[in-house]
Amino acid sequence: MNRIKVGILGATGMVGQRFIQLLEGHPWFEVTEVAASERSANRTYAEVMQGRWKVEGDIPPRVAQLTVKECTPELDCRLCFSALDSSVAGPLEETFAQAGYVVSSNSRNHRMDPDVPLLIPEVNADHLAIIPQQKSRWGSNGYIITNPNCAAIGLVMALAPLHKRFDVDKIIVTTLQGLSGAGYPGVPSLDVIDNVVPFIGGEEPKVESEPLKILGSLNGGQFVFADFQISASCTRVHVLDGHLESVNIGLKQKASAADLIDTWQEFDPLNNQELPSAPSPPLIYRREDDRPQPRRDRNEGNGMACVVGRLRKCSILDYKFFVLSHNTIRGAAGGAILNAEYLFKKDLL
Amino acid sequence: MNRIKVGILGATGMVGQRFIQLLEGHPWFEVTEVAASERSANRTYAEVMQGRWKVEGDIPPRVAQLTVKECTPELDCRLCFSALDSSVAGPLEETFAQAGYVVSSNSRNHRMDPDVPLLIPEVNADHLAIIPQQKSRWGSNGYIITNPNCAAIGLVMALAPLHKRFDVDKIIVTTLQGLSGAGYPGVPSLDVIDNVVPFIGGEEPKVESEPLKILGSLNGGQFVFADFQISASCTRVHVLDGHLESVNIGLKQKASAADLIDTWQEFDPLNNQELPSAPSPPLIYRREDDRPQPRRDRNEGNGMACVVGRLRKCSILDYKFFVLSHNTIRGAAGGAILNAEYLFKKDLL
Amino acid sequence: MNRIKVGILGATGMVGQRFIQLLEGHPWFEVTEVAASERSANRTYAEVMQGRWKVEGDIPPRVAQLTVKECTPELDCRLCFSALDSSVAGPLEETFAQAGYVVSSNSRNHRMDPDVPLLIPEVNADHLAIIPQQKSRWGSNGYIITNPNCAAIGLVMALAPLHKRFDVDKIIVTTLQGLSGAGYPGVPSLDVIDNVVPFIGGEEPKVESEPLKILGSLNGGQFVFADFQISASCTRVHVLDGHLESVNIGLKQKASAADLIDTWQEFDPLNNQELPSAPSPPLIYRREDDRPQPRRDRNEGNGMACVVGRLRKCSILDYKFFVLSHNTIRGAAGGAILNAEYLFKKDLL
Amino acid sequence: MNRIKVGILGATGMVGQRFIQLLEGHPWFEVTEVAASERSANRTYAEVMQGRWKVEGDIPPRVAQLTVKECTPELDCRLCFSALDSSVAGPLEETFAQAGYVVSSNSRNHRMDPDVPLLIPEVNADHLAIIPQQKSRWGSNGYIITNPNCAAIGLVMALAPLHKRFDVDKIIVTTLQGLSGAGYPGVPSLDVIDNVVPFIGGEEPKVESEPLKILGSLNGGQFVFADFQISASCTRVHVLDGHLESVNIGLKQKASAADLIDTWQEFDPLNNQELPSAPSPPLIYRREDDRPQPRRDRNEGNGMACVVGRLRKCSILDYKFFVLSHNTIRGAAGGAILNAEYLFKKDLL
Repeated sequence: MNRIKVGILGATGMVGQRFIQLLEGHPWFEVTEVAASERSANRTYAEVMQGRWKVEGDIPPRVAQLTVKECTPELDCRLCFSALDSSVAGPLEETFAQAGYVVSSNSRNHRMDPDVPLLIPEVNADHLAIIPQQKSRWGSNGYIITNPNCAAIGLVMALAPLHKRFDVDKIIVTTLQGLSGAGYPGVPSLDVIDNVVPFIGGEEPKVESEPLKILGSLNGGQFVFADFQISASCTRVHVLDGHLESVNIGLKQKASAADLIDTWQEFDPLNNQELPSAPSPPLIYRREDDRPQPRRDRNEGNGMACVVGRLRKCSILDYKFFVLSHNTIRGAAGGAILNAEYLFKKDLL
Repeated sequence: MNRIKVGILGATGMVGQRFIQLLEGHPWFEVTEVAASERSANRTYAEVMQGRWKVEGDIPPRVAQLTVKECTPELDCRLCFSALDSSVAGPLEETFAQAGYVVSSNSRNHRMDPDVPLLIPEVNADHLAIIPQQKSRWGSNGYIITNPNCAAIGLVMALAPLHKRFDVDKIIVTTLQGLSGAGYPGVPSLDVIDNVVPFIGGEEPKVESEPLKILGSLNGGQFVFADFQISASCTRVHVLDGHLESVNIGLKQKASAADLIDTWQEFDPLNNQELPSAPSPPLIYRREDDRPQPRRDRNEGNGMACVVGRLRKCSILDYKFFVLSHNTIRGAAGGAILNAEYLFKKDLL
Repeated sequence: MNRIKVGILGATGMVGQRFIQLLEGHPWFEVTEVAASERSANRTYAEVMQGRWKVEGDIPPRVAQLTVKECTPELDCRLCFSALDSSVAGPLEETFAQAGYVVSSNSRNHRMDPDVPLLIPEVNADHLAIIPQQKSRWGSNGYIITNPNCAAIGLVMALAPLHKRFDVDKIIVTTLQGLSGAGYPGVPSLDVIDNVVPFIGGEEPKVESEPLKILGSLNGGQFVFADFQISASCTRVHVLDGHLESVNIGLKQKASAADLIDTWQEFDPLNNQELPSAPSPPLIYRREDDRPQPRRDRNEGNGMACVVGRLRKCSILDYKFFVLSHNTIRGAAGGAILNAEYLFKKDLL
Repeated sequence: MNRIKVGILGATGMVGQRFIQLLEGHPWFEVTEVAASERSANRTYAEVMQGRWKVEGDIPPRVAQLTVKECTPELDCRLCFSALDSSVAGPLEETFAQAGYVVSSNSRNHRMDPDVPLLIPEVNADHLAIIPQQKSRWGSNGYIITNPNCAAIGLVMALAPLHKRFDVDKIIVTTLQGLSGAGYPGVPSLDVIDNVVPFIGGEEPKVESEPLKILGSLNGGQFVFADFQISASCTRVHVLDGHLESVNIGLKQKASAADLIDTWQEFDPLNNQELPSAPSPPLIYRREDDRPQPRRDRNEGNGMACVVGRLRKCSILDYKFFVLSHNTIRGAAGGAILNAEYLFKKDLL
């Protein structure tokens, strides 16, 4: 089989590097284009990345020798993964969609657009039905799909099966987020050693809104948001990768703790779809007292599974638990790749 | 003035060391006795502590040459500070009370006893009226007072003035606790580097119950607990000292955010009592986006003040905020010393 | 092919766990026995390890259900890997050798014995010629081989090819060692956060002596130690895995910097032996200014390769450089496994 | 007494902040001017520093309301402390000296100038005799003095008394340096968590050269450098403040270990000069196995003393030991303040 040509927009940043790392050896996709700002263009990726490649391992040799191009819609590929900074992603992604590319974006800019799916294949694959509407906006065969914020993804994954069966009523969540979420150079070491920073700019509104779109429905060509409230408090802790979240949940339907755990453990909607990046199962419940832990659990399912633990009664809402997800894999590049795999499987590429 | 002789029960552990450090140069109290297990007895404190003194600075020379005694009620002092391990504190503290000593304890064992004050001088000094009842239980002039758990103290300090004025209805709290709370050797480095442990044995029940006794009233010789619920989730993070807490609060009375901040800033019930360890004010509200932070704020008021920040609306309960307290100063030795200072001021020693 | 049955002595500690993890799926060896202290015996490994399994991933299911046995020479296997604590390894390993087992040990007890090879297959495979002498001591077909201390291995690997070609004259080394070298619970978090401990008990003598045996020769049935001196200073730093070493080296023969780098890069004595754990090449020289770094380079060659960098002139001796090795893989379990693979290849099992 | 007016050049960076913090309440000096780049000028220091004040405690209120000026020689003060970035310090400090100011600089630019003292008052106060020569260069009553690099200072302090008595022959040193030495934002957290960076740009040459000027003599109006070699390897470790150094030393005169320790402990050349920032003694030798440690020892003498430990025989040179100094106090702002105190005491201001 010929692999599909893909380009990486914003290929030099941390998320761009993760895309390249995760796509190395991918059975369906082949990175043929790396695009970045004008400043980096016209040199090989290896040259541009000297001293800047920060993910584990070395640059895959085939990508290393690609010439970096500017982010203009003249790339030789059908699919673009966007790791663009949110300061430029908005119009650039639109330009690519108009020019007929499929853009699987990790940037926040278009997530809440009324005709852009904010996609988690395990959760709201039916939202892809909006795509024709978007295509007609662009007047092309291109479109944009997005994956959720890195702190929203773990929460939504844990909530999705519960919401379907027991109807979520209220969520209070405090996040303990890893540092890689801030990119590179990101958080200065002087700010997080022997410390916690109880604030991440712009994060709480995303955690409070994105899950409601994802868990909502597509009705008559419109997204109807899920009908419950989330209250989030976001902190940055001394952890490299992995967002841990302390969740209190109220449900509209009665459910026992065993019901909730069963629901999580039975959740595996993609289990016979054979998507290369889909973890099976996508949710793992650990029964130890002291799990999930970022360093020990973040790589479950190659960083694509979410790990839940410590479910117990809450005296204010109904239950409380912890959930962990890998913020730069499931919560960024890996999520966008899984989305594209799903599109391919459903003949939407 | 002659200083009051005090003994330290459990003088060799981390909290015992903090007592000795904080009492050095104290204007009212003088450490004349250091007591520990049989294993340590009959050598000088300096000898016993070789390689075990872990708080900053050196052992105060006068204490270094004291002979360590066993924890039997034959110490030459009026007041004992107890830093005993909870596995032995229960009966040992009782023995001292029966023998006529005043015991200001940091151990959890007697905190919830029906005639033992769980004291924060700024909050529930009136609970000391129970002491005569306790004395008659022991048939002596001795008694026990306790200070709260290190994760409960910051929460109660932040809640106390709000509860008085606006009546707390519901609390959901997630703690991010420093490592010194686990003593020494305590948490292995392999467990917390690049990691968070979302569990601290026995901690959540204490955070959920102790504040209700402290914020309750003493009625007809009985403690009546405050009438609201707390739901706590406790985590251990990569921080040396300082417990940061993410709090969601529901109130029975209406209050604006400005009301809450004013209430915190006006709170200073001990401000003209001239207690050596009392911070003034005991609560500090910081208006920056990203405070309080453990390393940057834990030493406010010499570690005796609590720092509050990021008050904002909560879509589920009424408000949310962060509070920070120094767990081994205000949350342990410093709290017990302040309690004893208050007893002295009120002629209860 | 039938895999060779192997047992793990000291299977519950950190190094024991690494043996089990690294041997999972091994093409030649199959863990059939797990042995530990009397306290752990007669329960399944899974039961014994509840809350104690600390390496990444879960216990391999087949090992999980093995019954833990005591460390007596009644194990059903030909080969034992010893991860025994040095307080008991001495006589226990001898008992196994006498009973006819081959013991590949990570413990320090027999490393300097006059008839025990201190083996690195890339460096001193010829030392195995001592084995018949050892067998006759035990009066059995069993024997002990050992791998070097985790801080010695990186140094010896870097020195071996240089010594062969240019004759090492003098070595001064300062180590910056990872925490896993101290086992679990090991170093308390309160000792290493925002800190360095400039001392590791017993480490400097090992780093100063073991390389001289390894780089020495076997002459007339006796080990003749290499004829140069090493002066070591060992520190513990805030790193999970990986020992970084700052090395100053004097050589007896003249050599240019390019000579040294070429010598390192050409070093690959096992390259056509097809040993499953042998990295190829075993030494990697990185030309960046700021490498090797523990987190970024420790997993080279699956943790079996050593990474060298920053070679430059020294104004006191001849050159200086940094070398890094993974202390619990190449420096412990992985090293012992590679040793056993070499024995197997040479028909010594 | 009227305090001397002092200005801070580069008042907004990390070292500038330290100057302001350490000078608060100084008995002789009063900060009357804060100067920075054009960008910051004409606003109050409090405004400029919003979100940028990173040292402990709050901005001293009197300084907070000062108007930030540009770094032009129109400041109302006799003495300037320079915390200027090395990209601009060179010509700016000259301009101030020409205009008649005394500049006590922490910047590297003029340290090696042939008529600029690189001063440690305990070590080479006699180098101040060069000042008239410098004044005649500027044609004014102004001049520049400098304090050494933060990694050089601890080494020189430990070497100074040894060199005087036993004549240093050779030094090999590996540094483990704290993060605050890189300023703010400085080292990204992703680079140092679970990691060490074995490189600090430009540091090794400074550590190898500055001590030779300081330990040299002033002969016939010229600095004659000390006649020995230093070979340095510099690393950045996960420590907030404090540079730990592993030193191997060769001496020209014979000396026992006891001689060395006595020499260190007797070293206190400023002990009756009553300089406010001078630690007494400036060198502390700790006899424990595992000291000095950055977090536990860096604040000795309010961060102005250096701590030495683990002296032992070296098989290559003569001895080896560790030394620790606080890099932003003794190694930066505190050092420059002590230098100015010495000038004042000697009527050179």
